[in-house]
Amino acid sequence: MLFTINRKLDISVQNQLQQQIIAGIMNGQLAPGTKLPSTRKLARDLGISRTTVVIVYDKLVENSFLVAANRSGYEVATAANWPQEARRPLPQVPPAKPPVNWDQRIDPKLNSQRNIHKPANWQDYPYPFVYGQPDVSLFPLPAWRECSRQAMSRMAMHDWANDAFTQDDPELVREIITKLLPKRGIYATADELLITMGAQNGLYLIAAALMKNGVKVGVENPGYPDARNIFDLCGAALVSLDVDPEGVVVDDALAACDLVYVTPSHQYPTTVTLSSERRKALLKCASENNLLIIEDDFESDTNYTGEPVPALKGEDTEGRVIYAGSLSKSMFPGLRLGYIVAPKPLIGEMRGLRRLMLRHAPSNNQRTASLFIAQGYHLAYIRKLHKSYAERWRKMMAGLEKYLPGMTTAPSFGGTSFWIRGPVDLDAADLARRALSQGIVIEPGSVHFINPEMGNRFFRLGFSSIGAERIDEGLKRLSTLL
Amino acid sequence: MLFTINRKLDISVQNQLQQQIIAGIMNGQLAPGTKLPSTRKLARDLGISRTTVVIVYDKLVENSFLVAANRSGYEVATAANWPQEARRPLPQVPPAKPPVNWDQRIDPKLNSQRNIHKPANWQDYPYPFVYGQPDVSLFPLPAWRECSRQAMSRMAMHDWANDAFTQDDPELVREIITKLLPKRGIYATADELLITMGAQNGLYLIAAALMKNGVKVGVENPGYPDARNIFDLCGAALVSLDVDPEGVVVDDALAACDLVYVTPSHQYPTTVTLSSERRKALLKCASENNLLIIEDDFESDTNYTGEPVPALKGEDTEGRVIYAGSLSKSMFPGLRLGYIVAPKPLIGEMRGLRRLMLRHAPSNNQRTASLFIAQGYHLAYIRKLHKSYAERWRKMMAGLEKYLPGMTTAPSFGGTSFWIRGPVDLDAADLARRALSQGIVIEPGSVHFINPEMGNRFFRLGFSSIGAERIDEGLKRLSTLL
Repeated sequence: MLFTINRKLDISVQNQLQQQIIAGIMNGQLAPGTKLPSTRKLARDLGISRTTVVIVYDKLVENSFLVAANRSGYEVATAANWPQEARRPLPQVPPAKPPVNWDQRIDPKLNSQRNIHKPANWQDYPYPFVYGQPDVSLFPLPAWRECSRQAMSRMAMHDWANDAFTQDDPELVREIITKLLPKRGIYATADELLITMGAQNGLYLIAAALMKNGVKVGVENPGYPDARNIFDLCGAALVSLDVDPEGVVVDDALAACDLVYVTPSHQYPTTVTLSSERRKALLKCASENNLLIIEDDFESDTNYTGEPVPALKGEDTEGRVIYAGSLSKSMFPGLRLGYIVAPKPLIGEMRGLRRLMLRHAPSNNQRTASLFIAQGYHLAYIRKLHKSYAERWRKMMAGLEKYLPGMTTAPSFGGTSFWIRGPVDLDAADLARRALSQGIVIEPGSVHFINPEMGNRFFRLGFSSIGAERIDEGLKRLSTLL
Repeated sequence: MLFTINRKLDISVQNQLQQQIIAGIMNGQLAPGTKLPSTRKLARDLGISRTTVVIVYDKLVENSFLVAANRSGYEVATAANWPQEARRPLPQVPPAKPPVNWDQRIDPKLNSQRNIHKPANWQDYPYPFVYGQPDVSLFPLPAWRECSRQAMSRMAMHDWANDAFTQDDPELVREIITKLLPKRGIYATADELLITMGAQNGLYLIAAALMKNGVKVGVENPGYPDARNIFDLCGAALVSLDVDPEGVVVDDALAACDLVYVTPSHQYPTTVTLSSERRKALLKCASENNLLIIEDDFESDTNYTGEPVPALKGEDTEGRVIYAGSLSKSMFPGLRLGYIVAPKPLIGEMRGLRRLMLRHAPSNNQRTASLFIAQGYHLAYIRKLHKSYAERWRKMMAGLEKYLPGMTTAPSFGGTSFWIRGPVDLDAADLARRALSQGIVIEPGSVHFINPEMGNRFFRLGFSSIGAERIDEGLKRLSTLL
């Protein structure tokens, strides 16, 4: 018997049957002319309703995979209906070993880069203090489905089915400009905004446009590893900038840069918010030394003790701040949507780059996201996340005072993680290994430092993925390992 | 009255009302505490059903934008429910003129590149012989919606909501490997496949990985302008390769390259299919001179006089062919999905590049596309397109013989366009302008040539967007302008 139904799968019985018949036809098991079991027999054998079988058979007839032979039932349509190749079986021989010497052809730079690693199955651990992964169970899936359905109407599709080359969905642009940016104190025009494939893609576009041939780029140390990786790959000469409890330090090292990459709302990874004095000093320094500032406005919506601090971009009167925002945390990371706000000439340049790189973000997702914002679901979800994260944040504060006193480096008023400085002789990488064996996932800190050894005693505890009720116990167990 | 309903819009009355209330709250017109009209009054004033108003009010209460005051009705919830910034009005002053000298910062290369231009409103012209835009009316939207709904189930979402970093959707990978590639005579393993944001993104990744510092890259002339643009931007030294009625010419110029970019199934833009002798010669030359071949398998599904020719990659026993495929034409261009098949080391490198560039294609679209293939809709749509394009192709053949005899350069058996060589003194750019004024959209050919003046007498006529019934009249009118 060719077909099997698994009721445990997250896919309807009808679709399982349809997929298995298609697969059988395309891999040749069901050759043209093959008679299929009668609807009654197949329904009985599989223990499913006969109506289901009839619906599937009819669908496949409609798409010319099957023909209704006569009263004797259904059979597979003739091969003429699709290419011969479709039914060629997979070969048993492995592909020939390539004599091409790839090491000679490929730039080794990538492989030498350091990245954050977390166990692929982190969701299986009882105490996942992982960073940057949302609690999917909070996402308003029905609202997203509704917006997606609206975006897929025939008329709407006419707007976005075609390749838009360089253009973004004007409706998403409008929603971001009128609803998201004002929340951050930013007022931009449509030609000052570019939709990106997430903030990561935003940083890549900025780097590709501005960082060729050893341009001096200041980066926070500790800071976001992938920002360093991208800038380095695009040709920048990285300059290390110190971070203290007020945020990035504005000094001669910073003044000597061409560009500076900063995370003001909650510094990555220390979660420190840039003080207002520092904000003024940074903008003043940029103006005096003709610097450009890249603002990664990262977790801007997560402040648990007051209003969020407006974006640096909001105070930028000279067009020196290039603002990178993301919808990954306020929608979902797999969506890969973000945006850049910058002066018109730079947006034009990056639009040209994006055109060659990928044209534009998928139009159906752009339209769905615009409806998700326009109908208030986006803001409602942010509030829901905020409520839930605030509770976890308070539990973290309490637990850290109880079990790891004095180890949180700076007062943290927001973000979705805590930055921990362990004892001077701590090897956080080793701690992480031992913790994992106890079901606790933590993130060693050294990857965030330009010189790894500086970070041996640091680690990060994220709380966006761990249930509030597990936080206290998780921290307790972690402390016994310290 | 704040709200207006427009029944002509492609958005339900309910959603129009909901969006307008959200917009009013967020831009401050509806301050906290503001009483909303009673459901009865608003329904009467707008001429819509009271139930609709009740549904909208309830949704907004559920998301804490409104509160049900008491029997006196609904009012806007207190500001505490969302950031102050949300209600700051747009400023009247324009942004300050940036003193930053962007010309100094930005590489001028992009602006000097030539691209294909078509009128943005080409759909409004009666005779749009435009190229590369599908006939949206043929797309099986209900099937796509069904797959999208399945992809958005709670359980499925768990698979893809999180950032997958470097990984592609294993279900889409499986569908491409087992159903699409075998149709082209290609048998690959999962680590030889990379999902891209369309073929364009595929070419960019290949170029970024292999074309730094003046690597010699052969390109067909005439050929695909954006391939030249991408390779040039990534640092390649371009080598012009001639094209004759058998396809790209295999000669010393080609043998001297490090990489060669070709479009064997239907050469771009001439639509010539690479002859089997040339295929053999190309692979032999690559093996003897240690070349890599980039195969853009472009319109492979469009052959109207026989079976499609298998991909060059299918005959590649040495791992020298890098294969770029696209789902833009067999799903829709706005989706931005494609794939690369290449030896494992190169795929690994490009996966690392893609991770820094954009992480991965949106997971929801990857899952929807995999279901669209698995359930047979993709192949059914290709057959439907093929049928419709074949009819238009025959009408084009007939019309060209009647009105532009002897002007089609090479025997064309497929593709979605014809490549026309006009009289020796023709200025196709001027013809295109005159044609446009008559409602006929054609594409001048010079942009496809490395040296534009060589292309003055050529132009391209696409037939994927023009209705079969208009082809004859369109060609007749065009011929009178020649």
